[in-house]
Amino acid sequence: MINPLFIQELINQEINSIDYNRKPERLYEPINYFMGLGGKRMRPVLSILSCYLFNNDFEKAVKPSLALELFHNFTLIHDDIMDNAPLRRGMPTVHEKWNVNVAILSGDVTLIKAYEMLEYIAPDIRLEIFKLFNHTAKEVCEGQQFDMDFEQRSDVSIDEYIKMISLKTAVLLGLSMYMGARIGGASTDEAQLMYDIAKNMGISFQIKDDYLDVFGEAEKVGKFVGGDIVSGKKTFLLIKAYELADANQKNELNRLLNDQNIEKVSKVNAVLNIYNQLNIKDISYGATISYFDKAIFSLNQLNVDHSKKQFVIQYFKDLLGREK
Amino acid sequence: MINPLFIQELINQEINSIDYNRKPERLYEPINYFMGLGGKRMRPVLSILSCYLFNNDFEKAVKPSLALELFHNFTLIHDDIMDNAPLRRGMPTVHEKWNVNVAILSGDVTLIKAYEMLEYIAPDIRLEIFKLFNHTAKEVCEGQQFDMDFEQRSDVSIDEYIKMISLKTAVLLGLSMYMGARIGGASTDEAQLMYDIAKNMGISFQIKDDYLDVFGEAEKVGKFVGGDIVSGKKTFLLIKAYELADANQKNELNRLLNDQNIEKVSKVNAVLNIYNQLNIKDISYGATISYFDKAIFSLNQLNVDHSKKQFVIQYFKDLLGREK
Repeated sequence: MINPLFIQELINQEINSIDYNRKPERLYEPINYFMGLGGKRMRPVLSILSCYLFNNDFEKAVKPSLALELFHNFTLIHDDIMDNAPLRRGMPTVHEKWNVNVAILSGDVTLIKAYEMLEYIAPDIRLEIFKLFNHTAKEVCEGQQFDMDFEQRSDVSIDEYIKMISLKTAVLLGLSMYMGARIGGASTDEAQLMYDIAKNMGISFQIKDDYLDVFGEAEKVGKFVGGDIVSGKKTFLLIKAYELADANQKNELNRLLNDQNIEKVSKVNAVLNIYNQLNIKDISYGATISYFDKAIFSLNQLNVDHSKKQFVIQYFKDLLGREK
Repeated sequence: MINPLFIQELINQEINSIDYNRKPERLYEPINYFMGLGGKRMRPVLSILSCYLFNNDFEKAVKPSLALELFHNFTLIHDDIMDNAPLRRGMPTVHEKWNVNVAILSGDVTLIKAYEMLEYIAPDIRLEIFKLFNHTAKEVCEGQQFDMDFEQRSDVSIDEYIKMISLKTAVLLGLSMYMGARIGGASTDEAQLMYDIAKNMGISFQIKDDYLDVFGEAEKVGKFVGGDIVSGKKTFLLIKAYELADANQKNELNRLLNDQNIEKVSKVNAVLNIYNQLNIKDISYGATISYFDKAIFSLNQLNVDHSKKQFVIQYFKDLLGREK
């Protein structure tokens, strides 16, 4: 049985073999730097695992799967500008290390390099994957715009939130497993099942991410716990709290989120207090599990080697950080 | 015989038929706005004319050619941010009318929509065009980065300048005519000839553009004559002047370009004075004509209907604004 770390290593080797040493340096150096920051390479790993479910010869999925990693990094470089983020994986973002213009343009080239990797897809499925890639790429941008729009709104519903995170992150995971499955010889129906599995998994991860920011331990998630509360980010937790709050709790939430002078720890504690009153911890954990189980249920329907399925389920569990 | 205005109208109809009315509005409205600002639609017109040279059925080139116009507009939206440009075709740029984040993201989607149009290319040439499109797209970004790098340098050579404008503008015209030719059934050799023709034409246009900024009449070019001198832009004219200047003239140029307090009209007149001493007007006009004639010479080698060739030559002449 292959293992995800081995796949990750394969992907890193492939990434390192891309020739970035072109001129002008100020265009290619940032791409090289950013792609080298590492990460779990979740999207190509998912694609390669999905290929492997249907075909032992998973190596042919490696090069096309780089399109997913390059696309993901393009969105990160541009999102970091938009979010004014100073750090990514503990290192300076491209617009911080160079400047905004360099980050815009090297992000653009990263997107174009993603498309280049689609040249390696076999002719019989190339147009199909190309169309889904284009469609998904637009959706991811739509998700980012919805996310930014939400920051200006106080009436975001849970349905809207789920749609936003689906677009911003889950559909790309869907594409990843779809692509891998088709490269591995799956039918379009089987590939669509893999798409749905990965999408539900992505929604589960995203809610878990919101959950961990508040209820996780600082050392586990590597950032200040409650950062989302301090910034007033529209998370699953906050939106759910607004949905369930009575008039008094709503007023209190509004007051806490709009008050710029309130001290951070007091703010986190006061919001946490409302979350506890409304049982937000259990509800959001439950939502994570519900999407996770939906994905696992679908995966179990799939008519492929049992041990391979178990292997993919284990990867999902490791990603979600669940013990069992 | 078809005419370029008719083709332009066809393209505009096709552009208007694209469904931009998607959510989120702040993502799609800017694209709709920017694509609606008009312009000569030079790239799709070149593509369609190139198709027409080899095939009367030029309509099949229309949809794929929109990829070129969308790609061009993507570069304009992002370049306008980088150049801090307030106006485009006399109207506010996207980052001015909305903001930088909106301009980054709607530019990204415009690039993705460009790729979508490649879905309409016939299967037998799709990979070939896709590869050239990817390659050219990277080159255009490289050209933009070189252009920005040049602003910080005082030792740019004419060769470097020609390479920069080739990358930034001419290769996209090359791709336009290559794509049209192949859609029209031309061989790869014939398409390569069309590529070279359009590329030389593009270099000719670009030098003419620099020329007109200084020696054109304000009402013809629609902007302040000498704007490039005021901003100290590295144009063909300025680089050539540095190349030919003696030590005194070089010092004088350096003084004029680095002095932020000098009054605009005096600056333009003083630089113009040096240009006149060095015969820059004739030299740059000569360079324009030389690239133009190279393109026409190649076009005349082409074994296609004579009147069609004459028709394309006339379009080139109209673009360059030459009487004969």
